[in-house]
Amino acid sequence: MSRLLRDRSQKVGKPPGQLIHIGDYSTTDVEITLVEFDQERVSVNEVDSVDVCLASAKKKDIVTWIDIRGLSDLKVIEDIGQMFGIHRLWLEDVLNTDHRPKIDVIQDTLFIILKAIDHVNTYPRIQAEQISLFLGETYVISFQEKNVDVLSVVKDRLQQSRGRIRHERAAYLFYSLIDAIVDDYYRVVNDLGNVIENMELQFEDQGEDLSNQIRKLRVELLLLNKIVTPARDFLATIVKGDHPLIHTKIKIYFQDVYEHANQINDALSQYRQLLTDLHDAHLGLINQRMNETMRFLTMFASIFIPLTFIVGVYGMNFENMPELKWEYGYFIIMGFMLAITLGMIIFYRRRKWI
Amino acid sequence: MSRLLRDRSQKVGKPPGQLIHIGDYSTTDVEITLVEFDQERVSVNEVDSVDVCLASAKKKDIVTWIDIRGLSDLKVIEDIGQMFGIHRLWLEDVLNTDHRPKIDVIQDTLFIILKAIDHVNTYPRIQAEQISLFLGETYVISFQEKNVDVLSVVKDRLQQSRGRIRHERAAYLFYSLIDAIVDDYYRVVNDLGNVIENMELQFEDQGEDLSNQIRKLRVELLLLNKIVTPARDFLATIVKGDHPLIHTKIKIYFQDVYEHANQINDALSQYRQLLTDLHDAHLGLINQRMNETMRFLTMFASIFIPLTFIVGVYGMNFENMPELKWEYGYFIIMGFMLAITLGMIIFYRRRKWI
Amino acid sequence: MSRLLRDRSQKVGKPPGQLIHIGDYSTTDVEITLVEFDQERVSVNEVDSVDVCLASAKKKDIVTWIDIRGLSDLKVIEDIGQMFGIHRLWLEDVLNTDHRPKIDVIQDTLFIILKAIDHVNTYPRIQAEQISLFLGETYVISFQEKNVDVLSVVKDRLQQSRGRIRHERAAYLFYSLIDAIVDDYYRVVNDLGNVIENMELQFEDQGEDLSNQIRKLRVELLLLNKIVTPARDFLATIVKGDHPLIHTKIKIYFQDVYEHANQINDALSQYRQLLTDLHDAHLGLINQRMNETMRFLTMFASIFIPLTFIVGVYGMNFENMPELKWEYGYFIIMGFMLAITLGMIIFYRRRKWI
Amino acid sequence: MSRLLRDRSQKVGKPPGQLIHIGDYSTTDVEITLVEFDQERVSVNEVDSVDVCLASAKKKDIVTWIDIRGLSDLKVIEDIGQMFGIHRLWLEDVLNTDHRPKIDVIQDTLFIILKAIDHVNTYPRIQAEQISLFLGETYVISFQEKNVDVLSVVKDRLQQSRGRIRHERAAYLFYSLIDAIVDDYYRVVNDLGNVIENMELQFEDQGEDLSNQIRKLRVELLLLNKIVTPARDFLATIVKGDHPLIHTKIKIYFQDVYEHANQINDALSQYRQLLTDLHDAHLGLINQRMNETMRFLTMFASIFIPLTFIVGVYGMNFENMPELKWEYGYFIIMGFMLAITLGMIIFYRRRKWI
Amino acid sequence: MSRLLRDRSQKVGKPPGQLIHIGDYSTTDVEITLVEFDQERVSVNEVDSVDVCLASAKKKDIVTWIDIRGLSDLKVIEDIGQMFGIHRLWLEDVLNTDHRPKIDVIQDTLFIILKAIDHVNTYPRIQAEQISLFLGETYVISFQEKNVDVLSVVKDRLQQSRGRIRHERAAYLFYSLIDAIVDDYYRVVNDLGNVIENMELQFEDQGEDLSNQIRKLRVELLLLNKIVTPARDFLATIVKGDHPLIHTKIKIYFQDVYEHANQINDALSQYRQLLTDLHDAHLGLINQRMNETMRFLTMFASIFIPLTFIVGVYGMNFENMPELKWEYGYFIIMGFMLAITLGMIIFYRRRKWI
Repeated sequence: MSRLLRDRSQKVGKPPGQLIHIGDYSTTDVEITLVEFDQERVSVNEVDSVDVCLASAKKKDIVTWIDIRGLSDLKVIEDIGQMFGIHRLWLEDVLNTDHRPKIDVIQDTLFIILKAIDHVNTYPRIQAEQISLFLGETYVISFQEKNVDVLSVVKDRLQQSRGRIRHERAAYLFYSLIDAIVDDYYRVVNDLGNVIENMELQFEDQGEDLSNQIRKLRVELLLLNKIVTPARDFLATIVKGDHPLIHTKIKIYFQDVYEHANQINDALSQYRQLLTDLHDAHLGLINQRMNETMRFLTMFASIFIPLTFIVGVYGMNFENMPELKWEYGYFIIMGFMLAITLGMIIFYRRRKWI
Repeated sequence: MSRLLRDRSQKVGKPPGQLIHIGDYSTTDVEITLVEFDQERVSVNEVDSVDVCLASAKKKDIVTWIDIRGLSDLKVIEDIGQMFGIHRLWLEDVLNTDHRPKIDVIQDTLFIILKAIDHVNTYPRIQAEQISLFLGETYVISFQEKNVDVLSVVKDRLQQSRGRIRHERAAYLFYSLIDAIVDDYYRVVNDLGNVIENMELQFEDQGEDLSNQIRKLRVELLLLNKIVTPARDFLATIVKGDHPLIHTKIKIYFQDVYEHANQINDALSQYRQLLTDLHDAHLGLINQRMNETMRFLTMFASIFIPLTFIVGVYGMNFENMPELKWEYGYFIIMGFMLAITLGMIIFYRRRKWI
Repeated sequence: MSRLLRDRSQKVGKPPGQLIHIGDYSTTDVEITLVEFDQERVSVNEVDSVDVCLASAKKKDIVTWIDIRGLSDLKVIEDIGQMFGIHRLWLEDVLNTDHRPKIDVIQDTLFIILKAIDHVNTYPRIQAEQISLFLGETYVISFQEKNVDVLSVVKDRLQQSRGRIRHERAAYLFYSLIDAIVDDYYRVVNDLGNVIENMELQFEDQGEDLSNQIRKLRVELLLLNKIVTPARDFLATIVKGDHPLIHTKIKIYFQDVYEHANQINDALSQYRQLLTDLHDAHLGLINQRMNETMRFLTMFASIFIPLTFIVGVYGMNFENMPELKWEYGYFIIMGFMLAITLGMIIFYRRRKWI
Repeated sequence: MSRLLRDRSQKVGKPPGQLIHIGDYSTTDVEITLVEFDQERVSVNEVDSVDVCLASAKKKDIVTWIDIRGLSDLKVIEDIGQMFGIHRLWLEDVLNTDHRPKIDVIQDTLFIILKAIDHVNTYPRIQAEQISLFLGETYVISFQEKNVDVLSVVKDRLQQSRGRIRHERAAYLFYSLIDAIVDDYYRVVNDLGNVIENMELQFEDQGEDLSNQIRKLRVELLLLNKIVTPARDFLATIVKGDHPLIHTKIKIYFQDVYEHANQINDALSQYRQLLTDLHDAHLGLINQRMNETMRFLTMFASIFIPLTFIVGVYGMNFENMPELKWEYGYFIIMGFMLAITLGMIIFYRRRKWI
Repeated sequence: MSRLLRDRSQKVGKPPGQLIHIGDYSTTDVEITLVEFDQERVSVNEVDSVDVCLASAKKKDIVTWIDIRGLSDLKVIEDIGQMFGIHRLWLEDVLNTDHRPKIDVIQDTLFIILKAIDHVNTYPRIQAEQISLFLGETYVISFQEKNVDVLSVVKDRLQQSRGRIRHERAAYLFYSLIDAIVDDYYRVVNDLGNVIENMELQFEDQGEDLSNQIRKLRVELLLLNKIVTPARDFLATIVKGDHPLIHTKIKIYFQDVYEHANQINDALSQYRQLLTDLHDAHLGLINQRMNETMRFLTMFASIFIPLTFIVGVYGMNFENMPELKWEYGYFIIMGFMLAITLGMIIFYRRRKWI
């Protein structure tokens, strides 16, 4: 399956808003976690039905986080959509796990799609996991295709500490989730960066396969760019826009995560530049080495070819070849060939081939 | 005929608004389908004259879709133009089937040109079919040069379901047609993408013809870009502008199709990048292989050339060559040559050629 | 003389507004055609002096077109300038036939410089002919260095038909002239495009000279770009701006010609892209072929070089060489060499060289 | 450790505003210098606690500069943050010594991160040292990871002269620090530039390693760009924006330093261009030389190979070879070979190989 | 010394506004020319002190032009600065003869830095001479490092003619100086352009050194770009902005010089493009030629190598080699070799190598 654009052919001809899951893990069961917290207490429960979630989300004094993992059960998605008044097109976006990171606003709901990065071991080592987040006045809803560790980290922080996150409203939770995802980009980009910079530092010792390695790293950078660049762009719109849910006090946090995304984006384009420069230098080096090989061969051949010709001459069987009968013919010819050889060596020295 | 710019030479010197069909299929007959629908009923009729269409379009309570296939009968085009008050320059654009995708507005009519993609089997596999759409208060008019399946899909949906499309006004039908066309881009881009990504994954096993294959794929991407990029641009102007016919409730749908066009556009430039990287790596690999071949030859030649010289020396017919008479001359020389060979092999091992 | 920037050295140190003709055809005589028309009648007269033109241009009820061909007679230019109140700097621009296409507005006069294309037979096949147009309330003045057919086309249309052009005011004539020039670009770009696309389709059969042909086509595209891109830019300013002479009803026509210029511009950059891709593929192919040649040589040499050495060994004249006296020595050695050859062939088969 | 993106993995999962030092020199002790001055007097004291600093900063009639070197003692950073009401996210930025140069404003405090350049001797010769500056009404606070000479220069100027810097308020000191840092960029870019321009001027004498040298210089330019470009960008926002602390009279100074940053930035991209052109020319030269080597070999081989064949023919031992018995057979054959040689030489002369 | 960025190291650590001359000709004496003119009379005097200048500049009814050549006497610069109330930072810019072309405005003074081009004979043939211009209500002050001819041209025009320049105010003189400098760019760019276009037209006859020549021309284009592009940019700001001294009537002149700068800038980028295309074609050609050389060698070697082997076989000295004793052995073998040769030739014909 294409890594840059997923097949949507089953969507063609369907009316918009038709919910169809486009993704990899359609068989995973759906798990729903309901997190409720205020300054005093936190409760984390696995729930079976989404009905309890609505009741919780309506409470003004607590923050509710509904975390849905697995997108195979369209019924759950549709229920959530109806209860929270989410537009069917947005639900369609949630299910299309190849959607471009984006931000959207209708009235009092903010909708974000972004990607967590799964760093697998086989090439290409970058895999995007789509996370969709809805922010309402009192609740955050998160959808993921499969369980991404990065959100669990926030869940743990909520339970363990009584820090800032517990004192703030839903918007801060919303921010914390985005921040955790973007912070995780550092890890991946850093891993890739180390590979590239090591390659660069040990450039001269690189094996013959460098072209191919560079190509693979470029593909991985391309995949990362596809994830990071749109995320940075929509963070910019959060920072520059003014949505009532993202008030000034919260915005400084989004400014912070925007700067991180920006820095990662810069690093990606710098790595790309590095690889391009590396490939240029690699081509130059190959050509240089070929040049040297050619010179070596030419030097060798041009010294011995005339000599071989000369010994061939005196290997001819003509009856009348006066030199063959000379007393010192053999030694004269050997001396002559030595002179030629020396001449050639001097010639190549002058041309700086040796 | 040029694939990137069609010959318009018959237009030169003609006044603007002169209707001349510039296209491929000038011999096809013109077929007119009149679709009328409201929530209750749908009627789809092939009609011979455009007069009945006008009557239908004037009814405020139903939505009328006039679908014209074939552009060879200028009379029909001109009649439509007069009845619906369409500017002659627009009619000229409809007939010029090589027109750039665009959007135009005059008063209460919206005019869009975009391209459906025909995916043929011979290179280049991309062929653009121009579709022109007019949106009025109560009607949509579509012009196509030949029958494009992608619009039939919407016609079928209208007839089969009683879904949303039947409850909405002309603007929603207008959107549905555009959405169907853009959704179809996915299929084509996906097909091309699979070819490119397979090529990338099996890069090392690629035959010698890679340069040429990459070139062909680049041409196809160029042709796709010519179709998708302007479409994305005018969808952006719909989303950002505010035309009375495209009211807020409808705009979210156009936002959706705009995002799809954007994603396809991204994918196209990523594929282009991929091909560029692939070609770089391919050049690197060819050079690398040439280097290896050269080394092999050089190694081979530089070992045997001196040996051949030596045996040549002792093939000379001088009468006075003392070595020839030595008891073990032959074996000494053979040993000497063996030593030279070993020396060369050690030398190449040090240079890491072996 | 430079094709991309004409020598203006005679201007250095001169005060601005000093009228000096910078161009190719300074010896051509000046011809002035006075065209007057309204809905009823058209008169086309060659006139000797510009005085009659002024009288004509002052008549409010007819449209006057003063067409001046040849720029060598500075007196005529200066007279026109004074009569119609044209700024000396603009006259200077008219005479500088290497001026960049541009638009300028002072009060009630609109001034445009653009280029007609002369398609000559020798490389580079693109030659720009500068046309300067002035639009006043009731008149259009056109200056050309030499007679360009493309304006005659409009003159013919005026005389032959009683179409739209005869019913409209000066602004429409002004538009018609620009439209005729831009329409003519299609012809030239189309010709060039056919050359490029044929080259592309028959890429594999291309001779050795491809690099050089691509280079020449690139130069021609560059020359075309220099003509088309600024024209498109100033057409955009006409469409987006609002000059009293270009009222809304006329603007739709300028929109149309702007779209054409835009499409041509797109085509040019796509052709450039095509040539770049083609050159990449060409380089890849040359390298590929060189690789094959090298392999062939290496294979050949590495099979025969050892054999030649062996036969050299038994061509030596040592008195004591036991093998020479063996009954079947010759046949054993021949068999041995056959074995080596087969071994090499198997080796190359494994490396997929054969 | 990655030079383009530092490892932040210890931050993942931490709440924002958590102070963690990400940098190289975590073991250095923290040194705090308190500088107080007005027109009359200057006092520079090393202090142990930050408490005295607050008292000083509150005095309206003097300017206070608190210079903190070393970031390992989080307590100090936190104290400063609390006393001066600095947002925890900013403190986090101060500690993250890989932060992108940036500017931030909250109410009455201006916060800038920029980089001083350490020019070390080993490749890559560019090392960035982060400097964070806070500007309040009456004070400037500077944080550095290790002692950077460039700020000492300003300290010395304060102590030695009674110039402008002593008469102005904190904003001028703030400017002076930025100016000193940016002025120092000149030195580094100039050093690098000299290396590049020398390489360019002696291009033809360059050794074989040019590809690799160019690659290294490109990496250094990349590192410099990462420092200079964002600095230039935020200086632009100071110049174009209007913060109450940066009043018009001061702004002209920032305009000046902005122009310097701009000039350096221009120089960097010009150097990059120069290196690209140099590498192109280098590749061209290598190819050219390889071509010459190949021609030389081909010429040599194609002259001697036929000759060697001919002498081989007459070295055959057939009993019946009439030529061998000719009186002048040997001399005829020698003459024949001479003729062939001359023919080849004439042939190559015609092809302009010699 | 670096051509792209001059050494400013003596500035590091100095306070801003400290006047230090950074340039090449620090030893030249300072010459001051005072030009006063109105419609009636012109006086041009060499003066020793700047005091008289101030008196002259205060006269409202005449235009005063103070032309200062040589920057080594800081006292003069400082005096001018104080008398005319010029900011010290601007004086610093005047002395820094490597400053980027720029425009600056304070109240009633306009300050411009731009570069005249010295076209020298040795590579790189482009040398920038900085000219600083101040425009006040009644005066223009010009600073140059050494005497640039281009300003003398305006001086001559003032003295000789009683044209427009004598009737206008200081702003027109200011414009005339800029116009003279920009007009001079044409000459230089035209010279360079002729070199490039000749190289292009005679591409196929180019010697082996083309890579290197292209590289040098690229450097010169880079140097020209550094001069022209910022000049064009600040002319744009004059044209688009509205400074009281540059009233509408004058602005049309600046529009004119802006267009010239724009055209030169276009030409520079087109020349750059041309050189890039030329280098591409050059690389293609070298590769093509190498290919041909290789084929020739391969063909030659692969025909003669087997033949040489065969004659080697019959040169062996085995006692029992039946063929040697055949009556026509020699002729049979010769015929056999002829057959092989013809076979090879046919083979290569089929592969289109011959």
